[in-house]
Amino acid sequence: MLNGTSILGTKRSATTGEGFYGINPATGEQLQPAFFSASAEDVDTAARLADAAFSSYSKLSNSRRAAFLRSIADALLKASREIIERAHLETALPVPRLEGELARTANQLRLFAEVVEEGSWVNARIDTADPERKPLPKPDIRSVLQPLGPVAVFGASNFPLAFSVAGGDSASALAAGCPVVVKAHPAHPGTSELVGTVIRECVATAGLHEGTFSLLFDSGIEVGSRLVQHPLIKAVGFTGSLKAGRALMDLCASRPEPIPCYAEMSSTNPVFVLPGALKEHDKIAADLTASYTLGAGQFCTKPGLVFLPPQDETSGLVEEMRRRAASLPAFTMLTAGIAAQYKRGIAQQTQANGARVVAAPDTIFGTAAALLEADAEDILKNPALTEEIFGPTTLLVRYQSREQMLRIAESLQGHLTATLLGTEEDLAGHQDLIAILERKVGRIIFNGYPTGVEVCHSMVHGGPYPATSESKSTSVGTLAVYRFARPVCYQNIPQPVLPEALRDSNQLGLLRMVNGQISRDAI
Amino acid sequence: MLNGTSILGTKRSATTGEGFYGINPATGEQLQPAFFSASAEDVDTAARLADAAFSSYSKLSNSRRAAFLRSIADALLKASREIIERAHLETALPVPRLEGELARTANQLRLFAEVVEEGSWVNARIDTADPERKPLPKPDIRSVLQPLGPVAVFGASNFPLAFSVAGGDSASALAAGCPVVVKAHPAHPGTSELVGTVIRECVATAGLHEGTFSLLFDSGIEVGSRLVQHPLIKAVGFTGSLKAGRALMDLCASRPEPIPCYAEMSSTNPVFVLPGALKEHDKIAADLTASYTLGAGQFCTKPGLVFLPPQDETSGLVEEMRRRAASLPAFTMLTAGIAAQYKRGIAQQTQANGARVVAAPDTIFGTAAALLEADAEDILKNPALTEEIFGPTTLLVRYQSREQMLRIAESLQGHLTATLLGTEEDLAGHQDLIAILERKVGRIIFNGYPTGVEVCHSMVHGGPYPATSESKSTSVGTLAVYRFARPVCYQNIPQPVLPEALRDSNQLGLLRMVNGQISRDAI
Repeated sequence: MLNGTSILGTKRSATTGEGFYGINPATGEQLQPAFFSASAEDVDTAARLADAAFSSYSKLSNSRRAAFLRSIADALLKASREIIERAHLETALPVPRLEGELARTANQLRLFAEVVEEGSWVNARIDTADPERKPLPKPDIRSVLQPLGPVAVFGASNFPLAFSVAGGDSASALAAGCPVVVKAHPAHPGTSELVGTVIRECVATAGLHEGTFSLLFDSGIEVGSRLVQHPLIKAVGFTGSLKAGRALMDLCASRPEPIPCYAEMSSTNPVFVLPGALKEHDKIAADLTASYTLGAGQFCTKPGLVFLPPQDETSGLVEEMRRRAASLPAFTMLTAGIAAQYKRGIAQQTQANGARVVAAPDTIFGTAAALLEADAEDILKNPALTEEIFGPTTLLVRYQSREQMLRIAESLQGHLTATLLGTEEDLAGHQDLIAILERKVGRIIFNGYPTGVEVCHSMVHGGPYPATSESKSTSVGTLAVYRFARPVCYQNIPQPVLPEALRDSNQLGLLRMVNGQISRDAI
Repeated sequence: MLNGTSILGTKRSATTGEGFYGINPATGEQLQPAFFSASAEDVDTAARLADAAFSSYSKLSNSRRAAFLRSIADALLKASREIIERAHLETALPVPRLEGELARTANQLRLFAEVVEEGSWVNARIDTADPERKPLPKPDIRSVLQPLGPVAVFGASNFPLAFSVAGGDSASALAAGCPVVVKAHPAHPGTSELVGTVIRECVATAGLHEGTFSLLFDSGIEVGSRLVQHPLIKAVGFTGSLKAGRALMDLCASRPEPIPCYAEMSSTNPVFVLPGALKEHDKIAADLTASYTLGAGQFCTKPGLVFLPPQDETSGLVEEMRRRAASLPAFTMLTAGIAAQYKRGIAQQTQANGARVVAAPDTIFGTAAALLEADAEDILKNPALTEEIFGPTTLLVRYQSREQMLRIAESLQGHLTATLLGTEEDLAGHQDLIAILERKVGRIIFNGYPTGVEVCHSMVHGGPYPATSESKSTSVGTLAVYRFARPVCYQNIPQPVLPEALRDSNQLGLLRMVNGQISRDAI
């Protein structure tokens, strides 16, 4: 079934060079077949094919583009047994989790299909002419979003389906009208090839240009680095580490023609426990523990920092969290590299940064949950304590006063989320904290947990640097499509030549802004 | 009246260091008083004040923010005599042009006031909860745009009013809810101080935090460079040269926390003369000449490249353009530096790049209009021929075939605009050209001229690099406000704590997306 080579439109790359393998993280077993890193020529071929596909794919009708997205969703579900089996081998993620993730992947594609089919997302704006205006006649001006061009997408290790080959970045770029070149994550190459094959077949069935989709393999960083520097690539979508994300950002910014790089990178997702929450400390301990250890803590939205009121009030909560952490079995991490990085992170926090271990059955040599604590003043002095550690750990910090808590909030760097736990009265009494958090994060949660990111119209899975490279964007939810389009303006262009979205007749039935008023009316 | 020092909220900077002066470009005369470059401490003070102003200014009600913008418009018009007099001395731009520009500046502020007052620009989105959903309950998710933080704005030499202290970048940033720190352009420091004083008084009258607006002077690049690297500055607006804009882009991208840099930089605004246009060659020659020499060619939208059908058909047009260029008097450029750069640019094109002079009464030593021509194959071989020369010059290029014209279009880098002149039949026969231009520019114009940028809802004054740093943005028109805001998401937040735009009652009467449907209804 799997052949281990990159997908270049309808062609496959050669099996040259040394192969690399998927690894079963539960057993360390090497999985067949070998995968082969794409060559410089393969990267160039994929980018050229994507560019060649752009002129037709970008002009595809809304209904055909929507049907194409839905066909991928259907085909993924049809191939689910095979995909999930391989994904389970490559990631050791539990099958129910992978089933949920595949359903989410299909739902994302269908939600974007709905957005594309309805069509109004293109922000059509029309200001009609006024030949009588003084001192100068007013021209007819119209604008509409147009796709940017070929997009490079990087598969993420922690979402082998929902943020990999057919994941949110690919779905939103394809929805916007951009061909996609995916760089597969080397931790799940077989899953990537299976999904890539599904998309390639959907491209063929829909009669689209073969360059609409390509998939490149690489065991290292060279292919990705070449890809984002290719002059025909016009935007980048990435989910991964701060180090890799910043490297891509810098590559994109230093190109002769800089391009937007949407990197979702690093977030510790602070949780503020407000005094009223302590009445329910056992429930909060249970829910917080479930959230920071969900998926072995390998979520971008894992709550990795928990701020607690002064000690005497919170001992019940801490004790219960300790008890729960201590009783958890060891986790299987996604890759040996992530496991090693996790252990280094815990060691760094406890040895160099002064965090204390509250519970860690096997912290240094295993991959158990690690519950740490630190003093508020230490956090303020050493912001490294607030940096993300990818894995099942969280850091408890007791603040001594409300003023100190606000100072800590002010000192935070950008995160994807912040969570407040407490009563409605607590919340109403902490508007100052909320105002600070509105500058620090993309999503503020009350009496919930940041893991579990709803895919909907209002979701913001983004946030100020270093959470993402671009706080104005989101990588989850329908707003993600806006990352891959830009407005183009048409002045005095006759009706038949205008994009359909801008014609007087409004046959697409779009919601448009006409002379400042929103309507679906024809002109 | 003028005191030559930076405006730091309600304070003024010291008169230390060597002063610099405005210069009357028509006479070379030094204009009093001396202006003093801001110190590193002044930059820090302005940024800290802006940050301190953010918490209140960002939360100002729509009506108060709109009233503040309108008060600036009113106050500018009230001070118009003094402002225009000084601007005329500092720029030698004709008084009627400056009157028009001041009116435009006031209109921009008022248009943004309308947008702010109506309020729906914040893109409020609500997805209501569904506690019964399986397998997991659906939370209540809402998102709305929030301002980014303090914005650094750079005054432009060529628009001393409409793209300087109270210009489009300041107006859109203030509209978005961001305090502004302006770096005045050294070519019109007195104009900048007058306008800055007007804004400062409006800040005081409106009872706003003094840090809402500051103005920094500098004869060089140090203040701007410090400003964009200041950790409290969260975005940059700039109009100017490619060299300066790219330097700012690189500074913004290499910060520990990179920030968006909206730089409008360089555009040659190609014009395609289609065969049918030649019937009216005298009119086109007159209009094109007027457009490329308007304001001495010192517009971002100056048409600097004109593509013509094969020679025999266009000799009438070229001859008429030659006659007109030869009869134009010398122009006064905005600064001696711009004049010198213009002359160097013409010399470069004619001596190094192989362009031929069609008409240039006094090209090398004066600042006369320069009509140049080059062969299509030369353009393809040497893209330097297509680079912007700021000043009253344009380059005629005859294409030999339609295929060659399309190849040239494909070879173009990003520009703000492209213009097509011809009949409607010509246009309908050139959909392939239009499809290429949609990837190259921000605005496509038919039978009009790119100079003259309408300030309206659908305007896009942007385009792919190097036209701008961010092709997804515009610096003219109401879409410009979106540069300075980002979405923030609220999950399960109780009504009284939600931003007003997201409350069920919709007391602001905003157009919102509720469960995917657009409406002004309450929930």
